[in-house]
Amino acid sequence: MGDPTANVRIDCLQYSAWSDDIFDEMARGGVDAVHVTIAYHETFREMVLRLEEWNRWFERRPDRIFLGRTGEDVRLAKSQGRTAIFFGFQNPSPIEDDLGLIEIVHTLGVRFMQLSYNNQSLLATGCYEADDPGITRFGDQAIAEMNRVGLVVDMSHSAERSTLEAIDRSARPIAITHANPAWWHPALRNKSDEVLRALTRSGGMLGFSLYPHHLLNGSDCSIDSFCQMVADAAQRYGADHLGLGSDLCQSQPDSIVEWMRNGRWTKQRDFGEGSATQPGFPPQPGWFGSNLDFGNIQKGLSAVGFDDAEVEGLMGGNWLRFFDDSFGPA
Amino acid sequence: MGDPTANVRIDCLQYSAWSDDIFDEMARGGVDAVHVTIAYHETFREMVLRLEEWNRWFERRPDRIFLGRTGEDVRLAKSQGRTAIFFGFQNPSPIEDDLGLIEIVHTLGVRFMQLSYNNQSLLATGCYEADDPGITRFGDQAIAEMNRVGLVVDMSHSAERSTLEAIDRSARPIAITHANPAWWHPALRNKSDEVLRALTRSGGMLGFSLYPHHLLNGSDCSIDSFCQMVADAAQRYGADHLGLGSDLCQSQPDSIVEWMRNGRWTKQRDFGEGSATQPGFPPQPGWFGSNLDFGNIQKGLSAVGFDDAEVEGLMGGNWLRFFDDSFGPA
Repeated sequence: MGDPTANVRIDCLQYSAWSDDIFDEMARGGVDAVHVTIAYHETFREMVLRLEEWNRWFERRPDRIFLGRTGEDVRLAKSQGRTAIFFGFQNPSPIEDDLGLIEIVHTLGVRFMQLSYNNQSLLATGCYEADDPGITRFGDQAIAEMNRVGLVVDMSHSAERSTLEAIDRSARPIAITHANPAWWHPALRNKSDEVLRALTRSGGMLGFSLYPHHLLNGSDCSIDSFCQMVADAAQRYGADHLGLGSDLCQSQPDSIVEWMRNGRWTKQRDFGEGSATQPGFPPQPGWFGSNLDFGNIQKGLSAVGFDDAEVEGLMGGNWLRFFDDSFGPA
Repeated sequence: MGDPTANVRIDCLQYSAWSDDIFDEMARGGVDAVHVTIAYHETFREMVLRLEEWNRWFERRPDRIFLGRTGEDVRLAKSQGRTAIFFGFQNPSPIEDDLGLIEIVHTLGVRFMQLSYNNQSLLATGCYEADDPGITRFGDQAIAEMNRVGLVVDMSHSAERSTLEAIDRSARPIAITHANPAWWHPALRNKSDEVLRALTRSGGMLGFSLYPHHLLNGSDCSIDSFCQMVADAAQRYGADHLGLGSDLCQSQPDSIVEWMRNGRWTKQRDFGEGSATQPGFPPQPGWFGSNLDFGNIQKGLSAVGFDDAEVEGLMGGNWLRFFDDSFGPA
């Protein structure tokens, strides 16, 4: 191959109701790799049940998908017209209070772990808590162990101070796999300029989200507005540190977004980024509803002035370089 | 290398109180690979704690040991003067009632699983039960899944009918990693001629045990008697299907043999192969007490008339060929 990162298409966050149809769409849409969510609130043993479901998919559909463990697996997927599936946790609940589980889950293929979801975890603080006391004692140990084995620290749902501390304390670049800049759309889940500067300055990656609650004007966001935001971010942070993490939750019933938000931690109903009048998954914008729509974004990025090499990087090349550097021992 | 199985030394069963001293002895004794027991009665989650302990050893002593996953890892270990550690279960308790855990434990490095320990399991019958109804419904499914992923069926502690059925129903050769022929020493744990003929005729492997309860005259067994038994077995079954599985339990307190025998399944005290007057670990024969003593057996095998190629096979070459064929997808 020529440029080893050329022309790969990587989506660094999806949590869909997986099906033959979706895997077919990944192939038709030319998506070479997807980072899929394995756990929101699961214990270790419950998380393993989710891995078992993926193993059955890999057994049934080797023509379409396989477990991705390294950047090379993205190139292999592209060369074979398949999609490499990379595992990640949106919450550290599967490692329970046990540092040794970090290497175990890495051996099982997990490559990203958020140090918190929306609430306080044993490691860090989520963006919905009133106060953020920063990375915990266990969190410091976990970051070091994640660095050692090659499990990427993901701070997509974490609060400001915890995120800045994770960037600072991690010896290896970290990721925010799915969020947007707060200066474009000031949602609680979007990230401050300070966080994004620290993230990218340290070699970390931001994946832009296509989840309507993270978009300016929500489901009515225009592709031009989204792509112009990417262009503005590239001005501030450098195009090399940016990619996509669509947060696509295709074909999921609203019970899933309720599980994400409420897990087993409350008897009340938390609406998260939604509201009593909009409790469920919001409709996707017309220009991004499935794995068939990455071409729209690719064209939109060219239209706002990115050159071909920059577009290739944004569509997957930048994530691939990060995968190459991040998934093995330091 | 010349003969790809030449001159490796493999012990296909140990469960010692692991220590720096024992790993040093493995190196000084030229032991290239050891199959170590990970679980006797553990649940999945408890078994993972045992893997975590091994991960800490691998992190602390990369100069001495590493996790073996393939036959190639034995050759790597030999070329580097290290020892490849292969994981196995003496009981299927870690897969609970969940077929999907077979692929999960294989991914975590497990390469052998006994379908039962001494009691009835969910898969098969142990050699201490009064009756043996054979392989269970779940057992049939488990054998097929173990065949698919490359997890070796081990029937060391299982009863006669279950063992014969496992040999018959497994599409790939199976192993009895640590036992001796009952025609030499008629212990409950030793195997009938019928079992050993069926095992070896189907390409399976027998590892000879050095555990005193499996030896003629127990701790007083002579090395000549042991090696002559190996020669007689080679006459009956062919030397190519034979190796060593010492069952060495070095430096273990007697509480460990009580755990093996009693687990959590009884409030009474089961003495297993021992007795009220001999409840603990019996003393090893003087000629085999540690990883330093494989040379004694090697010399003893030559002394009873095996040629050099046969001795090489018995000391590890036969196991290596079996490892090469058994640890990956069919």
